[in-house]
Amino acid sequence: MSKRTIPSRRFIKPSYTYLIEKKRDGGEFTQEEIRYIIDSTLDGEMPQYQLAALAMAIYFQGMSAQETAVLTEEMMLSGEVIDLSHIAKPKIDKYSTGGIGDKTSLVLVPLAVASGIVLPMMCGEGQDYVISSLAKLGSIPGFKSDLSIDEFVSQLEITNGAFVKQSEELAPADAKMFDLRRSTGTIPSIPLITGSVLSKKLAEGAEGLVIDVKWGNGSFIKDLEQAKQLARSMTRVGRSLKRRCVALVTDMNQPLGDTVGTSLELKEAISLLKGEGPEDMQELILKLGMEIVRLAGVAGSTLSAKQTVERHIKDGTALEKLKEIVKAQGGDTSYIDDPDKFPTAKHIRKLPAPKRGYVHTINAAMIARGVHLLGAGVDKPKQKVDYAVGVSEIRKVGTQVKQGEPLMMIHYNDEAKLETALEYFKAAYRLAPKRPTPPPLVVERVA
Amino acid sequence: MSKRTIPSRRFIKPSYTYLIEKKRDGGEFTQEEIRYIIDSTLDGEMPQYQLAALAMAIYFQGMSAQETAVLTEEMMLSGEVIDLSHIAKPKIDKYSTGGIGDKTSLVLVPLAVASGIVLPMMCGEGQDYVISSLAKLGSIPGFKSDLSIDEFVSQLEITNGAFVKQSEELAPADAKMFDLRRSTGTIPSIPLITGSVLSKKLAEGAEGLVIDVKWGNGSFIKDLEQAKQLARSMTRVGRSLKRRCVALVTDMNQPLGDTVGTSLELKEAISLLKGEGPEDMQELILKLGMEIVRLAGVAGSTLSAKQTVERHIKDGTALEKLKEIVKAQGGDTSYIDDPDKFPTAKHIRKLPAPKRGYVHTINAAMIARGVHLLGAGVDKPKQKVDYAVGVSEIRKVGTQVKQGEPLMMIHYNDEAKLETALEYFKAAYRLAPKRPTPPPLVVERVA
Repeated sequence: MSKRTIPSRRFIKPSYTYLIEKKRDGGEFTQEEIRYIIDSTLDGEMPQYQLAALAMAIYFQGMSAQETAVLTEEMMLSGEVIDLSHIAKPKIDKYSTGGIGDKTSLVLVPLAVASGIVLPMMCGEGQDYVISSLAKLGSIPGFKSDLSIDEFVSQLEITNGAFVKQSEELAPADAKMFDLRRSTGTIPSIPLITGSVLSKKLAEGAEGLVIDVKWGNGSFIKDLEQAKQLARSMTRVGRSLKRRCVALVTDMNQPLGDTVGTSLELKEAISLLKGEGPEDMQELILKLGMEIVRLAGVAGSTLSAKQTVERHIKDGTALEKLKEIVKAQGGDTSYIDDPDKFPTAKHIRKLPAPKRGYVHTINAAMIARGVHLLGAGVDKPKQKVDYAVGVSEIRKVGTQVKQGEPLMMIHYNDEAKLETALEYFKAAYRLAPKRPTPPPLVVERVA
Repeated sequence: MSKRTIPSRRFIKPSYTYLIEKKRDGGEFTQEEIRYIIDSTLDGEMPQYQLAALAMAIYFQGMSAQETAVLTEEMMLSGEVIDLSHIAKPKIDKYSTGGIGDKTSLVLVPLAVASGIVLPMMCGEGQDYVISSLAKLGSIPGFKSDLSIDEFVSQLEITNGAFVKQSEELAPADAKMFDLRRSTGTIPSIPLITGSVLSKKLAEGAEGLVIDVKWGNGSFIKDLEQAKQLARSMTRVGRSLKRRCVALVTDMNQPLGDTVGTSLELKEAISLLKGEGPEDMQELILKLGMEIVRLAGVAGSTLSAKQTVERHIKDGTALEKLKEIVKAQGGDTSYIDDPDKFPTAKHIRKLPAPKRGYVHTINAAMIARGVHLLGAGVDKPKQKVDYAVGVSEIRKVGTQVKQGEPLMMIHYNDEAKLETALEYFKAAYRLAPKRPTPPPLVVERVA
């Protein structure tokens, strides 16, 4: 766990006000200045109000590639940096900016492992009603995700994959800054997002990283151009910190797959690991999976990457690996063997199409909000997640429907909760007389 | 003292984060939103870090004329608003953004009073080594400036003029915001400056306001265009709050007059009230004085305004009024009658010209800094001001000097302090072989 490698030259601490003014006026921070800001954030020396003003100045003035790389590295070095070099296999990590109905991580971790890759997956909490992979796996009785770093590393040695809670020991400076950014309107800053994500991800010990940058109404990045910028910023910084990096910019203008919920999504992931399941999810898994195996050096050509991914799904080894990982983390794997064991909701009803036409747009964020209201998410600590609720059979953009036909099926346990959720579901759908052109799933590849 | 006149309609409090994001994205606040921000600032409900982020967002996105007017009014209404309507005379206030060697207030208050005008002068603390009028008057034994609002109003009833410390009861929301702005790089925001200055000034009860916006190396506004913008913003807001307003944009690229210090400047002010003293100060007093008497309606035409100002200086009534005011505030007026009574410094030495040539530029801020170091200012509470120190006989821009001739005279009591101050004085002067064109004293009039 190597800490700061740059020798500490004589550095006269500037005032925090000076640093704020420097960035406000478009200046570029030196490495020492960024280190000083991160150190001062970590030990609480820099008052929160000055850090907030600085973050807003960064929001407006940006940071150079060099500054962003230093920020990332310094935040990474603010905590533990996991060393996986003793595991001989290639180690590739995967990160997504977060999507509604996205089950890729649940599939890609065991798929990578089946392909001979170590994938050390630490999962962030779901933001903006996005359900995290851990919440989905939480529907398996016994599954435990709060592993210590030592337990995490031990499991990677044995199963080569894991799904664990983000450790607080990794990049603690980011945690402090992120809390502040959330309440000060400074989340959507490309250098700050880059630093926040990569400082944690790169501390997990992988040699390469595949990034899924989602854009659209269900992502916190609504603008395609911004998503592309973020993809470029992350791959650039990743590379300058000596990690292989590829990013795909992908569509999040409607939910991914057919389901949104916890056990509903897990069941869909199990189907996908059997080579079944919705087309869009199959495509996304193929595309991201190919990037992982190529980045790992397991497959050389595009064709061999495709074959590698398809083979490990077809022959069932990826599904086996999911069971191994779940078992290692205390989960009852009989639920994976027999997904009917998952508890089902008391009521299932359709969301009827208000008129005939084509599904023109689906506001994914509204679907997520509705599912959250049904009880799939928690608003307060110690509140219990309702693993049975959610939506399924989502009619995607471009689907033709008759009046009264289901736009999706709603799984719910509580009539009162349904009522408000229904408002969101109804508002999420827009029908139009003409067939729309659905946006491409993968918009751009940034390497 | 009328508080909020707008009826409180049903207003659903937004989150502070929402408000920050709204401004960050260039939105315009409603009156209710601004009121809510000010209320929350005043009662401490809005955390400092959110207020800091908001101030930085305002720095970058600005505020509309309407927003700035509402901000000003709401900050004004956060505290006492003095009612002077029972005093029959016209009531005009004067404000300056702060200049080095500027003695105008010391002259204009008694001059306005002599012209039949009430001038309720509350003085801010000097910022950036600018010496406040109160620090200068502090050199008169017995002079007391911390009057209560009742004492202030009573004095205005009798003497029609006063020099008092800014009351904490006026615009307390501004005081809270200003402290935060100082340490978060958000001072130089035109709407925030406008709100800060006018909320206090308009609470003093005057019907009109003459504003001196200084630009240059000795002002916190270094840029002429910014100074013009500020002048326009202030007069616009003043008018929309039903006050007559005029602003002059004036030069602060060299010290004003011949002296910088406390008693040294007061002595110069006394000379000016006798119709003597340096030309630039005489001109500035004439120009600002004319604006005051015209705004008050005491003089109609430019010519009659000029005659009014000149008459009250020539006939000694303005000087008499200064004595009345000082006497009312407990000061020993014999010092005004006999300025030689002011204590003088132990040592006076010249700053020699390092070569022959013309004074090309004088960095006024460096002069101020040097005078501060000599002891004219305080760095800690309870530190004593040295009223004798300062500089005099300042050779202004365009003056021809021979090598070794004095650029100015330094009045000091402490050799050790002189040493560092001298570095600033030396660095402040630049000589050149050709005569420069001094910038105009009054650049623009904004009405």
